[in-house]
Amino acid sequence: MSTAIERDWTDRPDTAQQWVHRAREVAEVLAADAVERDRLGATPHREVQLLKDSGLGTLLGPREHGGGGQSWETAYRVTREVAAGDGSLGQLLGYHYLWAWAVRLVGTPEQIAAVEELYTAGNLFFGGAVNPRDGDLVITDEGDEIAFNGTKSFSTGSKVSDLTVLEGVLRGTDQHVFAIVESAQDGIVFGDDWDNLGQRLTESGSVEIRDVRVPWSGAAGYVDKVFRPLVYNTLNVPTIQLVFANFYLGIAHGALQAGVSYTTRRTRPWPYGGDNKDTATEEFHVLDTYGDLQAKLWAAEALIDRAGAELSEILHTERESVTEQQRGEVAVRIAAAKQRIADTGLEIANRIFEVTGARATANEVGLDLYWRNLRTHTLHDPVPYKRAEVGRYALVGELPQPTWYT
Amino acid sequence: MSTAIERDWTDRPDTAQQWVHRAREVAEVLAADAVERDRLGATPHREVQLLKDSGLGTLLGPREHGGGGQSWETAYRVTREVAAGDGSLGQLLGYHYLWAWAVRLVGTPEQIAAVEELYTAGNLFFGGAVNPRDGDLVITDEGDEIAFNGTKSFSTGSKVSDLTVLEGVLRGTDQHVFAIVESAQDGIVFGDDWDNLGQRLTESGSVEIRDVRVPWSGAAGYVDKVFRPLVYNTLNVPTIQLVFANFYLGIAHGALQAGVSYTTRRTRPWPYGGDNKDTATEEFHVLDTYGDLQAKLWAAEALIDRAGAELSEILHTERESVTEQQRGEVAVRIAAAKQRIADTGLEIANRIFEVTGARATANEVGLDLYWRNLRTHTLHDPVPYKRAEVGRYALVGELPQPTWYT
Amino acid sequence: MSTAIERDWTDRPDTAQQWVHRAREVAEVLAADAVERDRLGATPHREVQLLKDSGLGTLLGPREHGGGGQSWETAYRVTREVAAGDGSLGQLLGYHYLWAWAVRLVGTPEQIAAVEELYTAGNLFFGGAVNPRDGDLVITDEGDEIAFNGTKSFSTGSKVSDLTVLEGVLRGTDQHVFAIVESAQDGIVFGDDWDNLGQRLTESGSVEIRDVRVPWSGAAGYVDKVFRPLVYNTLNVPTIQLVFANFYLGIAHGALQAGVSYTTRRTRPWPYGGDNKDTATEEFHVLDTYGDLQAKLWAAEALIDRAGAELSEILHTERESVTEQQRGEVAVRIAAAKQRIADTGLEIANRIFEVTGARATANEVGLDLYWRNLRTHTLHDPVPYKRAEVGRYALVGELPQPTWYT
Amino acid sequence: MSTAIERDWTDRPDTAQQWVHRAREVAEVLAADAVERDRLGATPHREVQLLKDSGLGTLLGPREHGGGGQSWETAYRVTREVAAGDGSLGQLLGYHYLWAWAVRLVGTPEQIAAVEELYTAGNLFFGGAVNPRDGDLVITDEGDEIAFNGTKSFSTGSKVSDLTVLEGVLRGTDQHVFAIVESAQDGIVFGDDWDNLGQRLTESGSVEIRDVRVPWSGAAGYVDKVFRPLVYNTLNVPTIQLVFANFYLGIAHGALQAGVSYTTRRTRPWPYGGDNKDTATEEFHVLDTYGDLQAKLWAAEALIDRAGAELSEILHTERESVTEQQRGEVAVRIAAAKQRIADTGLEIANRIFEVTGARATANEVGLDLYWRNLRTHTLHDPVPYKRAEVGRYALVGELPQPTWYT
Repeated sequence: MSTAIERDWTDRPDTAQQWVHRAREVAEVLAADAVERDRLGATPHREVQLLKDSGLGTLLGPREHGGGGQSWETAYRVTREVAAGDGSLGQLLGYHYLWAWAVRLVGTPEQIAAVEELYTAGNLFFGGAVNPRDGDLVITDEGDEIAFNGTKSFSTGSKVSDLTVLEGVLRGTDQHVFAIVESAQDGIVFGDDWDNLGQRLTESGSVEIRDVRVPWSGAAGYVDKVFRPLVYNTLNVPTIQLVFANFYLGIAHGALQAGVSYTTRRTRPWPYGGDNKDTATEEFHVLDTYGDLQAKLWAAEALIDRAGAELSEILHTERESVTEQQRGEVAVRIAAAKQRIADTGLEIANRIFEVTGARATANEVGLDLYWRNLRTHTLHDPVPYKRAEVGRYALVGELPQPTWYT
Repeated sequence: MSTAIERDWTDRPDTAQQWVHRAREVAEVLAADAVERDRLGATPHREVQLLKDSGLGTLLGPREHGGGGQSWETAYRVTREVAAGDGSLGQLLGYHYLWAWAVRLVGTPEQIAAVEELYTAGNLFFGGAVNPRDGDLVITDEGDEIAFNGTKSFSTGSKVSDLTVLEGVLRGTDQHVFAIVESAQDGIVFGDDWDNLGQRLTESGSVEIRDVRVPWSGAAGYVDKVFRPLVYNTLNVPTIQLVFANFYLGIAHGALQAGVSYTTRRTRPWPYGGDNKDTATEEFHVLDTYGDLQAKLWAAEALIDRAGAELSEILHTERESVTEQQRGEVAVRIAAAKQRIADTGLEIANRIFEVTGARATANEVGLDLYWRNLRTHTLHDPVPYKRAEVGRYALVGELPQPTWYT
Repeated sequence: MSTAIERDWTDRPDTAQQWVHRAREVAEVLAADAVERDRLGATPHREVQLLKDSGLGTLLGPREHGGGGQSWETAYRVTREVAAGDGSLGQLLGYHYLWAWAVRLVGTPEQIAAVEELYTAGNLFFGGAVNPRDGDLVITDEGDEIAFNGTKSFSTGSKVSDLTVLEGVLRGTDQHVFAIVESAQDGIVFGDDWDNLGQRLTESGSVEIRDVRVPWSGAAGYVDKVFRPLVYNTLNVPTIQLVFANFYLGIAHGALQAGVSYTTRRTRPWPYGGDNKDTATEEFHVLDTYGDLQAKLWAAEALIDRAGAELSEILHTERESVTEQQRGEVAVRIAAAKQRIADTGLEIANRIFEVTGARATANEVGLDLYWRNLRTHTLHDPVPYKRAEVGRYALVGELPQPTWYT
Repeated sequence: MSTAIERDWTDRPDTAQQWVHRAREVAEVLAADAVERDRLGATPHREVQLLKDSGLGTLLGPREHGGGGQSWETAYRVTREVAAGDGSLGQLLGYHYLWAWAVRLVGTPEQIAAVEELYTAGNLFFGGAVNPRDGDLVITDEGDEIAFNGTKSFSTGSKVSDLTVLEGVLRGTDQHVFAIVESAQDGIVFGDDWDNLGQRLTESGSVEIRDVRVPWSGAAGYVDKVFRPLVYNTLNVPTIQLVFANFYLGIAHGALQAGVSYTTRRTRPWPYGGDNKDTATEEFHVLDTYGDLQAKLWAAEALIDRAGAELSEILHTERESVTEQQRGEVAVRIAAAKQRIADTGLEIANRIFEVTGARATANEVGLDLYWRNLRTHTLHDPVPYKRAEVGRYALVGELPQPTWYT
C-alpha cells in the first residue's frame, strides 16, 4: 500500500454516492501495490486500518454513534469498489459488514443497541470464526457463562480484527449460538495456515478456540437461555452470498480494467495478412472480446444490483415482518446473481490474457491475480447446487430451505 | 387467437403496473393459439386489432387524446410481455411504438402535435417501409410535394397497419426523409413474400412504392425544405435496438415457461443406475439446466431494464438537451443488452429441449417456435459488430457513430 | 430426389474408399431435393430404393451372396456421407446396418448364415420395432411358435422396409427376444404418427403388433427356448450409439457445407466503420466462426473415427472372445464421441446462421433443416447421463453396465 | 526431481510403444516434485540430464549413431507424455526435437549428416534463439564467416542446452539464416529474465548474441552463400505448432489426472437436500463435469494424433517431393488441432477446481500449475488468427501463406 495512505480521511461522506466515491479512493490506494502485497502475503494490518480510517468500516453503523447510517445497498457497492482495487480487502470489508450486522440478524434489541454503539463509536473491525458446515466449536453451559472450545478450519479476518464473531453448537443440542468477543485474547490462537491460491490477504486460516467465555447475556438472541427464532435470522446466508457476489464483481471489474490498461498501453498489434492494424486496439478479435466481456459484466452487475436493492429493503425492514416467501425469493435471486458473476468473472479473468498477449504473463504484470482470487473463493460452496436451487424454484416454485451455510 | 378475444377491453389501465398487467392478459390470449397461427402463417389482422382494442397501441399517446401517456420504460415492458405470448405480435407492437415516436424523433413541434393526435384519437396502428441500409426509395421534389418511388426488401407490419412510415433519400442528395402516409393506397403494393423461418406473422415482406406523394409539410423535421439535425434524431437506432432486446427477452421468457410447463407435466424421469428419481423435476441435470437458464435470463433482463430506464429518461427529456455523450453511452449499453439477450435467448430456446425430452419434438408441441423466432430476428444486424462497438467503448472510450441503421 | 436417381448403379464398389465414394454420390442425389422432401414429409420409398440400388444396403453382407463384405468402419463412414446429404436417410441406413447385424449380435450360427443370405441375396432393407426402454411388446409362448402383441411408440424405418426386427419380453420372464419378420403383413399396423421437428423422413412413428408369429427357431439366439448370453450380445448399444454419432456428424458436415455455400455465394459484406470488406468472406468474424466450427467438427470426427476403428475391430472378431472390459471401454469411448458431436453439431447448426445472415432465414433456403434434425435425434437419450458414464470411468475406472437401451 | 532419477536408464527402447512407455517413466519421475520445482524456479539442469540419460533426447536421431530412429509421430507422443509430468520439460523436449530437425528442414545433405551424427553420438541437447517475428539478430557477412549480433527477447532452453540454433537476417537482405553453435560460449549471454506465470522452467528469457561467428559452411542450406528454397523448409511452423499442441495436450492430461487424484482421495461430498451422497465421486455434477472434460480431451487428442500422423508422413518423405498443397493442408489441420487443445486444456485446467473443491486451492496442492502453464504458452500466437486460418480454408479453400513464425 502506497504512502498515499497517509492522506487525511477524517471527513465523512454523507450520501450513498459519496460513500461509493470514498470507496473508489480507497480502492485506488489499495490497487497501487496489490500485486506486490499479494506476492508477499503480508498480514494486511495497515490496509484494514485504512478501511477504518476512511470511515468505510462504520458505513452501516448508526449515525448517532458516528456511523454512516447507510443501507446495505450502499455497503454492497462499497464492497465491490474496494474489491476492484484489492480482492482480499474487499472480502474482509464485506465479511466485516456481515459480522457487524450479525447482532441484528439474531440478537435482542438490547444486544443490537450495545453492539452497534460499541463497534461504531470505537471504529472496530470484525472477523469471524463461523463456518457452520462443520460442527467443530462446542459450547458448554457454565451457569452464567458459556464456554467455546474447538477449532475452525477457516476464520476469515479474525487475525486482523478487533472483534470476532464465534459460532458453535451447544453440547447435547442442535442449537447454534453466536457471540462477539475480543479478537486479541489468549483463548484465540491462529493457525497462520492460510496459504492458498487466491484471496491471499484475507487471513482465512484456522483458529483454535480455548475456553473462550461469554456471559449468557452475550449469546445473541438468547433470553433465559432460550432462542426465539425469526425468519429474519436466516437472512445471514443470502446476505453473505451477496457479499460474495459483490466482491467477485469487483474483482472481475478490476481484471477487465487491468486488461484494458495493458492492451491500450503495451499490447503490440499482430501481423495479419494484408489487413494489419496499427494498434492492437483496432484488431477485430480484441474489440470483439472486450465487448463480449464488458456486456457480460454489465449483465451480472445489473442482476447483482437488483438483488441488492431487494435484499437491502428486506434487511432494513421490521424484523418480525419478514416472511419465508420474501426470504426465499431473494435467496433464489441471489443464488442466480452469484452464479452469473462466478461464471462471468472467471471468464474475464481467464480471457483478458487473450487480448493482452504473451508478454502480459510476466510476473511483474500480475494479471493472474484476478483469476487466482476468483478461482479460490468461487469454490466456497459448489455453484451447481446454486443452479439447482434456482432451477427448483423456476421449475416447481419451491424455495430453498434455510441452512446455516449456503 | 381464441375467442377470448371477444372480451370487453374498453376500460383503460392507469399505472405502469396496470399496463403491464394488461399486456399479460393480451399475451395470454395470443399464446393460446400462437403455435397454430404460426403454422398457418395467416396475416394477423385480428391480433393487431386486439392490440388496438386492448389499448396497448396508444400506450405512448397523449392522455388528452385518449392515450396512455406512459413512458418508454413501460412500452418496453409491455412489448416484452406481448412477445412472451407471441413473438411476432411483440415485434409488431414494438415497431409500432417506434414508428409512432418517429415524429418526435425527427418532426417539428407542429408535426408532433398533429401526428400524436391523429394516431391516438383514431387508435391507428403503424407499420414502416424503413430500412436505411439500402438506399432503395428515391424521393423526388415535386414543388409542394415530394414523391416516393422504389422498393423496400423488408416492410414490417405495413400490411396490417393503418399508417406507414416511409423513408427514402432525396434524389441528388444524401438527405433522408421520413413521412407518414396511409397504408391502404394504390401506391403501396405488398410483395407478400415474407416466408421465413421465424417471426412469421410480422408481415415483413417487400413493398413497392409507386409515386406516393406527401406534401413537404409532411416531411418530418423539414422546414422550408431544410432539415435541422439534432442529436435526438439519432435516437432511432438505440430505441429500436432496445425494442429488439425486449421482444427477444419476451420470446426467451416464453420459451422457458413452455419448457417448464412441459417438463412438469409430461417429461418422464430417466432411469439412472441405482439413483432413479420419481419425477423428471428431481433429476439433477434438469434442475441444474433450468437454474442456469433462469439465472442467465434474469441477468439479461436486469441489464435490459437498466438500459430501458436510461433510454426512457433521455427520450422523455427536452429534445434539444440531449448530447452526443448521452446518446452514445446509452447506445453502447443497449448494444450490450442486445448481445446478452441474443446469446441467452438462443441458448434457452435450444436447451429447453434437453430438459423436456425426445417426445417434446412432436410438432403438436411446437417448442421450436422460440428458436425459430429468435434465430431469425437476431440476425437483423450481426452481433459481432455490436460486440465490437461495446469493446471499442470499453477499451478506448469511443462512442459509436450514429448511423441510420444499427 | 432428382431424376438423377435413374442413373445406373449396377456396378459394385470394391474397396472401402470406393464405397465411401459411392455413398457420396448417393448423398449428392439425396441432397438435391432434401429440403423439399422434408417439407412434404413424404414417405421415402424411392430414396430407400436408391440405397438398395446403389448397393449401400448390402455393404456389410457377405461377398458370396453379393454383399460388399465391408467392415463396420466403412459402414460408419458411409452412414455419415449419406447423412450429409439427407439426415433422415442417413439414419435409416445406419439403423438398417444395425438390424442387419442383429442376428450376429444375438443369433446362432445357423440363424446368422440364413439371415445374411436372405437379406444380401434379396437386397432387403431392415426396419425395427425395438425400443427396449418400454416393455410394451409381450411375447407368448405358443408351443412351436412365439407370438408378439402390443405397441411400440417408435418404430424407425419399418414402414419402408422389407424386414422388421421385433423385440419383446417373454410373458412372465425378463427375457428379451429378437426376431425378424416380413414388414408387409396384416399383423404390423403403422400409426403413421411421426410428425416431429426433425428427421422427418425416418418413419419413426408408432406401430401396433397384432399376433405376429415366429417359430421358436427364429427367436434369435434361442436354442431349445433357452438363450445363452455372451458379452457380444450387449454390443448392440455401443453399435447403435455410434450409428447415431455418425449420422450426427454427417448432418453437421452438411450444415457446415450449406453455410459455406450460402456465405460464399450470397452473403453481403457488412458495413463496418472505415474497415469495410468487399466480400463477407473477408470479414474477420466470419472467418473466425468458420474456423472455430471446422476445428470442432474435425475434432469430433477424429474421435468418432477412432471409436469406429476400435468398435469395428471388436465387432469383426470372434464373438466368444469379447470381454466385458473391451465392451465397456469402447462403450465409454463411444459415449464420449456421441456427446462431442451432439454439442458440436448443434453449435454448427445454430451458428451457421450468424455467418450467412438475415436473408438466409428464408424458408426456400432451408438452412434450419440441420438444427431440426440434430435437435430431434440428439434427445434419443439424455446426453448428461452419457457424460456421467464417461465421468464415472474417468474418475473411478468403472465401466457402464450394459442395458438394452443406452 | 526425486532421487529416482538415479535409476539406470542405459537400456534403450526399441519400438514406438516402448519409447512412449519410457516417456511415461520419465514423466513419473518429473511429476514427483514438479510443483516444488515450479515454485523454486530452479534451472532444470538435472531434469534435462534426465531427458538425455533416458534416451529421449536422441529419439529422432539415426540408429547408426545410437539414436532411436523413431518417427515424428512418436516424438509427438513422447513430448505429450513428458508434458503430462512436467509441462516445462515437455516444452523443452519438444523444442529440442524441432531444433534437432532444423538441419533437415533447411540444411544441405552434408550438414544433415554432420549435425545428426554430432548430436546423436554426443547425446547433445538443443536450445534456440529463434523468434523470427522480431528481426533482432543481424548477420554480417565476414568473408568465410558470418557473425551474429543482437538480442532475442525469448530464447527457450538455450541456457540448459549444449547446442543453440541461432536465427537472424543477413544485413541488407531479407534472407533468414539458421546456424548451430555451442551454447556455452562468451558470445551468448543470458538475460535470466524469464519470470513468467507458467512454463517457468523453460528458461525462455532473453539472450544477447555478441559477435558469434559461424563459417558459411554452417549456414544451414546455403551453398556458395545462396539459399535454394524448398517447400519443405517451411514445415518448421507446422512442426513446432504441433509440438505446442502436444505439450498442451500433455499438460491438460496432467491436469485431469491431478483432479481425479484429488477428488477420489480428498474431496468431501456436499450436503444436498435429502439426496446426499456418501462420496464426492457419486455426486452428479462431479461425474457430469469429469465426463465432459474427458470427452473433450479425447476429441482434441484424436485430432492431434491425426494431424501428427499426417505431418509425420510428410516430414519423413523425400524433401523435394513435398508440395505447397500438402504443406498447406497439414498446416490447416494443425491450426485446428492447436485451437481445440488450447480451448480444451484451459477449460480443464480451470474447471478441475470445481470438482475438487475449496480446499484444493491450498498452495501445497499446486493444482494451479496446469492453468498457469497453459495460459502462458497458449498466448504464443493469438488463437483467433489460427481460427481465421482454418476458416479461410473451410470457406474458400485458401491455404495459409508460410511465414517464419506462425
